[in-house]
Amino acid sequence: MTLSAPVTPDHNRLTTLAASRYRNGQTLSGPWNEALEAILSHRSVRDYRPQAVPADVIDIAVAAAQSAASSSNLQAWSVIAVEDKDIKEKLNAVAGNQRQITQAPLLLVWLADLARPRSIAEEQDGPAEGLDYVESFLLGVIDAALAAQNAVVALESLGFGTCYIGAIRNDPEAVSQALGLPDGVFPVFGLTVGYPDPARPADVKPRLAQAAVVHRNRYDPSAHRALLGDYNQALSTFQAEQSMPRIDWTEQVGKRIGTVAALNGRHVLKGVIRKLGFPLK
Amino acid sequence: MTLSAPVTPDHNRLTTLAASRYRNGQTLSGPWNEALEAILSHRSVRDYRPQAVPADVIDIAVAAAQSAASSSNLQAWSVIAVEDKDIKEKLNAVAGNQRQITQAPLLLVWLADLARPRSIAEEQDGPAEGLDYVESFLLGVIDAALAAQNAVVALESLGFGTCYIGAIRNDPEAVSQALGLPDGVFPVFGLTVGYPDPARPADVKPRLAQAAVVHRNRYDPSAHRALLGDYNQALSTFQAEQSMPRIDWTEQVGKRIGTVAALNGRHVLKGVIRKLGFPLK
Repeated sequence: MTLSAPVTPDHNRLTTLAASRYRNGQTLSGPWNEALEAILSHRSVRDYRPQAVPADVIDIAVAAAQSAASSSNLQAWSVIAVEDKDIKEKLNAVAGNQRQITQAPLLLVWLADLARPRSIAEEQDGPAEGLDYVESFLLGVIDAALAAQNAVVALESLGFGTCYIGAIRNDPEAVSQALGLPDGVFPVFGLTVGYPDPARPADVKPRLAQAAVVHRNRYDPSAHRALLGDYNQALSTFQAEQSMPRIDWTEQVGKRIGTVAALNGRHVLKGVIRKLGFPLK
Repeated sequence: MTLSAPVTPDHNRLTTLAASRYRNGQTLSGPWNEALEAILSHRSVRDYRPQAVPADVIDIAVAAAQSAASSSNLQAWSVIAVEDKDIKEKLNAVAGNQRQITQAPLLLVWLADLARPRSIAEEQDGPAEGLDYVESFLLGVIDAALAAQNAVVALESLGFGTCYIGAIRNDPEAVSQALGLPDGVFPVFGLTVGYPDPARPADVKPRLAQAAVVHRNRYDPSAHRALLGDYNQALSTFQAEQSMPRIDWTEQVGKRIGTVAALNGRHVLKGVIRKLGFPLK
C-alpha cells in the first residue's frame, strides 16, 4: 500500500471552482491564490447597487489595464469613464437599453486608439502610413481587449461586478458622436462596473470542456464534437437554476450566427470602421 | 494639528507597484490582494529556464482563459499548446527568430475560431451567414484576447513568465499550415510560457501617465500632450537600467507607425485573413 499525497485545502478550492466552471468532473490541482480565485469565479453582473465606484478604484482599474502587455509598447488604446447619466443613456440606446447599463454607476468604454500615435507622428512631422492597414486596427483592438480584461480581474478581485457590452458595436458612429471621438478611434466594447446587487446574485456560467478548445501541437477539427451533448446538458441545468429560457447551446450558436439579422446592425461595421478613420488597407 | 490616517502596509504595496509602473509619483490606495500583485507587477519575460510547464499548470491557464467573458457565450476561440520543437521553430521562423520562442518550453497560439461555430451550424443543417462579416472576425479576435489575458494573469500569479508574440501575424498563412488550421481560424498571437530565468530578470516597463489614456465622459484629444516629455524621460531611465538602446518613446512610435516597411509584412494581412476563410464582408 502506498500513501496517497495529502490533499490540501488549496487543491480542493481549485477543483470546486472548476466544478462550477465546467460541471463535467474537470479537476484542477496546484496552489490556490487570490488571482486564481478572482479569475475562475468570474460571472457577468447585470444587477448593481446605485453607489458610485470610488475614484481610487478607478485608478487601480486603469493601472491594471495599463499593466497589460501592449504590442511594441504603442499603447494604442484609451478608455472613457462614463458616469454622466445622459451620455450613459445615449450609449444605452445604441446597446438596446440593457438594464445593466442603466443600473451601473460607471460604464467604461474601451477604445482602439490610433489617434494618439498619429498625433505623436504629426508633432514630429513624420508619416503615419502604417496606421492605414488592417494590422494597425487589429493591434489597437487587441491592446484594448488585453487592457480591459486586466481591469476586469482587478475590479472583480476587489468585489466589484462587471459586464462587457459588445452591443455598442451596433452603432459605433452614434457612440463616437456621444463621446466626441476623433478620427482613428474605435469603440471596441463597453464595460459596466459597480457593486453587485446582493439581492440578485449572478452565477458562474459553465463553459465547453477543456478538450473542445485546447489542441496539442496541431488543430484537431473534431475535438469538440463528442463534447457538445454534455455541454448542452450542463448549460440546461444552469438555465433552469437561473430561471432562464431553456435552449441548447448548439441551437443558440446556430441562431446567433445563422443570419445577417442576428448581427443587430453590425453587418455594416466595415463601412463604419472606415468612416471612423481607419482605411483598413 | 490633525492626525493623518494610518498608512497600512497594503496601501504602501500598491503605491510601490504604481511607482514601478509609472515612475511619475502616481499613487494607488485601497486593499492589496494577490490578484493586484500579479497584474501590476507584469513584465514580459524573454529568458526562460528549459523545464517544461507542468500539465496541471496548463489546465489552470486554460480554465482561466475559459473563465473570461465571451460575446454571446459563442466561445469563438481556441488555443494550441505547442511543445513540439520542430513546430515551434517553424513558428519562430515566421516571428523572425526570437530568443524567447527558442527558450520557452511552451508556446500557446491563440486563435479566433469561427470554424467551431460553423461546424455546429452545419451539423444542424443551418446557415452561418453572420460569420462572413467583419463583426464576427472581430468577435473571435476579442474573445481570444480576453481569454489569453486571463491565462497570462493566472500564469504570472503562479510564478511563470510570459511574452506575447504578435509577430506570428507576419505570416499567418505559414502559421496556419504549420498548425493545420481549418478555414475560419486565424492565429491572433502567440504567447511564450515558462519559468523565468533568474539569471536574466525582466523589469516592469513604465507606461504613459494615467491622464494620457483615461478620459472622463468625453474624449480629450489633447490629454496626452503635456505628458509625453516626462514619459520619454521615464522610459529613458528604464532603458539605461536594462542596457537597452536609448530612444525616445515618441520617436519609437513614429518609427513603428511611419512606414509600410515597419509592418514587417503585415501590410498584406487583409488578403491573408480572407484567404484563411474570413470573407470580411
